[in-house]
Amino acid sequence: MSSLRSWFSIPRGSHFSLANIPFGIISTTDSQKPRVAVAVGDHALDLEAFAASNGFSKLSSIQAHQAVFSEPTLNAFAALGRPVRATVRTYIQTVFAEDTTFPDVLKLNSEAQKSSLIPLKDVKTHLPFKIGDYTDFYAGLNHAYNVGVMFRGPENALQPNYKHLPVGYHGRASSVVVSGTPIRRPNGQILENPAADPKIPVFSACRKLDMELELGAFVTKANKMGEPIPIDEAQDSLFGVVLMNDWSARDIQAWEYVPLGPFNAKNFGTTISPWVVTMDALAPFLGKGLENDAEVLPYLKEKNPNSIPDIQLQVDLTTDSGTTTTITKTTSRNLLFSFPQMLAHHSITGCPMKVGDLLGSGTISGKEVNSRGSLLEQNENGKKDIGLAGMEVRTFLRDGDEVTIHGVCGTDQDGLVGFGECRGTIEAAIRIAK
Amino acid sequence: MSSLRSWFSIPRGSHFSLANIPFGIISTTDSQKPRVAVAVGDHALDLEAFAASNGFSKLSSIQAHQAVFSEPTLNAFAALGRPVRATVRTYIQTVFAEDTTFPDVLKLNSEAQKSSLIPLKDVKTHLPFKIGDYTDFYAGLNHAYNVGVMFRGPENALQPNYKHLPVGYHGRASSVVVSGTPIRRPNGQILENPAADPKIPVFSACRKLDMELELGAFVTKANKMGEPIPIDEAQDSLFGVVLMNDWSARDIQAWEYVPLGPFNAKNFGTTISPWVVTMDALAPFLGKGLENDAEVLPYLKEKNPNSIPDIQLQVDLTTDSGTTTTITKTTSRNLLFSFPQMLAHHSITGCPMKVGDLLGSGTISGKEVNSRGSLLEQNENGKKDIGLAGMEVRTFLRDGDEVTIHGVCGTDQDGLVGFGECRGTIEAAIRIAK
Repeated sequence: MSSLRSWFSIPRGSHFSLANIPFGIISTTDSQKPRVAVAVGDHALDLEAFAASNGFSKLSSIQAHQAVFSEPTLNAFAALGRPVRATVRTYIQTVFAEDTTFPDVLKLNSEAQKSSLIPLKDVKTHLPFKIGDYTDFYAGLNHAYNVGVMFRGPENALQPNYKHLPVGYHGRASSVVVSGTPIRRPNGQILENPAADPKIPVFSACRKLDMELELGAFVTKANKMGEPIPIDEAQDSLFGVVLMNDWSARDIQAWEYVPLGPFNAKNFGTTISPWVVTMDALAPFLGKGLENDAEVLPYLKEKNPNSIPDIQLQVDLTTDSGTTTTITKTTSRNLLFSFPQMLAHHSITGCPMKVGDLLGSGTISGKEVNSRGSLLEQNENGKKDIGLAGMEVRTFLRDGDEVTIHGVCGTDQDGLVGFGECRGTIEAAIRIAK
Repeated sequence: MSSLRSWFSIPRGSHFSLANIPFGIISTTDSQKPRVAVAVGDHALDLEAFAASNGFSKLSSIQAHQAVFSEPTLNAFAALGRPVRATVRTYIQTVFAEDTTFPDVLKLNSEAQKSSLIPLKDVKTHLPFKIGDYTDFYAGLNHAYNVGVMFRGPENALQPNYKHLPVGYHGRASSVVVSGTPIRRPNGQILENPAADPKIPVFSACRKLDMELELGAFVTKANKMGEPIPIDEAQDSLFGVVLMNDWSARDIQAWEYVPLGPFNAKNFGTTISPWVVTMDALAPFLGKGLENDAEVLPYLKEKNPNSIPDIQLQVDLTTDSGTTTTITKTTSRNLLFSFPQMLAHHSITGCPMKVGDLLGSGTISGKEVNSRGSLLEQNENGKKDIGLAGMEVRTFLRDGDEVTIHGVCGTDQDGLVGFGECRGTIEAAIRIAK
């Protein structure tokens, strides 16, 4: 990949090298209509403007479809299929290549550069897809084990089903927001004394507000209701991957979740990063996840088990005093099931998947304390302080805390394939008249 | 209400008396574009055609908004707010009244009658709303108790949270279908011997396919993320109610549901009736539900606790031999929480609700066996046969079985406020190569 040098200045360390070309939705002060773009270095290439400047003149196959770049979401572009997005990505790589065969498209075309290249600091990013349904899985084995130990002890930490299927639940699509959107601390019912009998809840702002380090993947192919997506087609039915923070209210969750699972504890906000890194960009970084010592059923068996990307993940916590501490470092290989397995399982009943559906991986944790993807796991459900820079400590999140997830594949030499950031700041709970 | 006599022939026993005027989406062989209609007797009044024939000429307030009747869903009409839909409903009642003050609109206007009145047998009904998110609650106390006894014994049948909050979980919006859509038996993982150790699942078509008698309510007002919908505003944030059958795969559910709740067991199909009965039409039938001996927190306290409709519900099972048996008769008063309480609870965290969101009540059961709203409760998880007409028996549903839910309020004399039917037939599972 070292051949992907560009005539365009891509800063060292940029997540958006030519090896990447992630897609997203942007608007600008001048042009507030959201539209499709890709990120290249510290710029966005506005694909609506690029198309208008005849940027796709050398890619005849896309010309009949250029209207998709004027859409406010990636849904229409995604629906064109994996070969089309692969072609568009490769073409953009070619256009930006040092020795581009199409220099008149952008390299030597200052008009086109002016109209379509916008500094990232000047763009506003939006949710990349109109999300139909959002499903959150629980495929981070170490997370499931750590949480299981806390609530059921090490002998029963994992439920008997855990290694046989990617456990998941339906989430709240309307609460998925793009990086940078503030997250308001939720109110709800909590138990002040869980050991009391009878158990009488109180109304309170959440006191155990947590983050969860996850990946999200977008579905790009609709199946007919009643007809599963076979595992061998699942990879091609995914657009790409984003970073995800599935904010969680642990005290609300502990009281509400029996017997039907988490509900209010998870429906007040889920943050995703704005640039969707395509499956094609991730292909060089795919490998095996955690070993599964259970034999999965045939509908979950992948021909190629190298299906889990190696993304170096990092979580930073910035307090309102301005100090930043890296609280988690881990890799996305800490998953027991891949996104194609999740999609095959999700649809095995015939559940109709739609273009723009979002699948969450579940919280990704390593084994060491500082590789755990939630505060709950690091503080052992509030029992231990987490040390921060500047002598501060945290158990759960305070108002004003900002959590930022970064993720990146590869090396600067070959060109990083990164995700930018997934960031959210906690706002104080709204006051409810009692 | 006996004054609501019509010049138009409304058959005795019709669910769609002038006291009702439910809204839905129809298309016809001649005009396949889905559009808004109301049901009156055994006809649909096509509101797009009615508007085109100047049907709303005497209702100036709606004229700027008539385009909503050409939409393929009720979302745009619903977003206009409760006063607008109340006005439209009342106006249509006036137009159909025997002594209508506007006889030239329809009564004496054979052209308008011809263009806008279509026999129900000639219309195809569609999903009434574009559903953003679908949430299923569990507010049928008797159902929760019956199921709890089966799995945890009578002492622990209800979880400690049950009477303090409407327990609910996020469902799968894409799998909600309109009455008449076939339901394919799902495949999935089940345990053939739940007592075995270790537990090893097999791949199988569902062997415990069940129905669930529920009501659904549509949300018509979006709240800003972070800002709850107060209970006193919740009633006005609901459009109306439909019948709902939340098909369930009990064997898949039993294996998969720990610890995050039902997933594949519930995502292969949920059927709703096509005509949405408005909150205004239901108003005369609202009363108290089941008594709650827990003191709910203030955010769930209704000023007027008469908030649960008295809908006489009936479930019929028709086998492929053609015999029909009424297997359940009950009333919707068997709910512990109302839809306004569900909406207030759902949004108390600031969860953003959207126009078109669907809330399910949870399974509605009475106390007697033949008033229970699921087969699971009637057959005690497969232990007992349910007797049908013609010497047939069932435990769970067989391929070819058709389940039809009916629901109706009021009396024929005053004009029935009914829901029509919510119907689905089971198709054989798809074969998956092993």
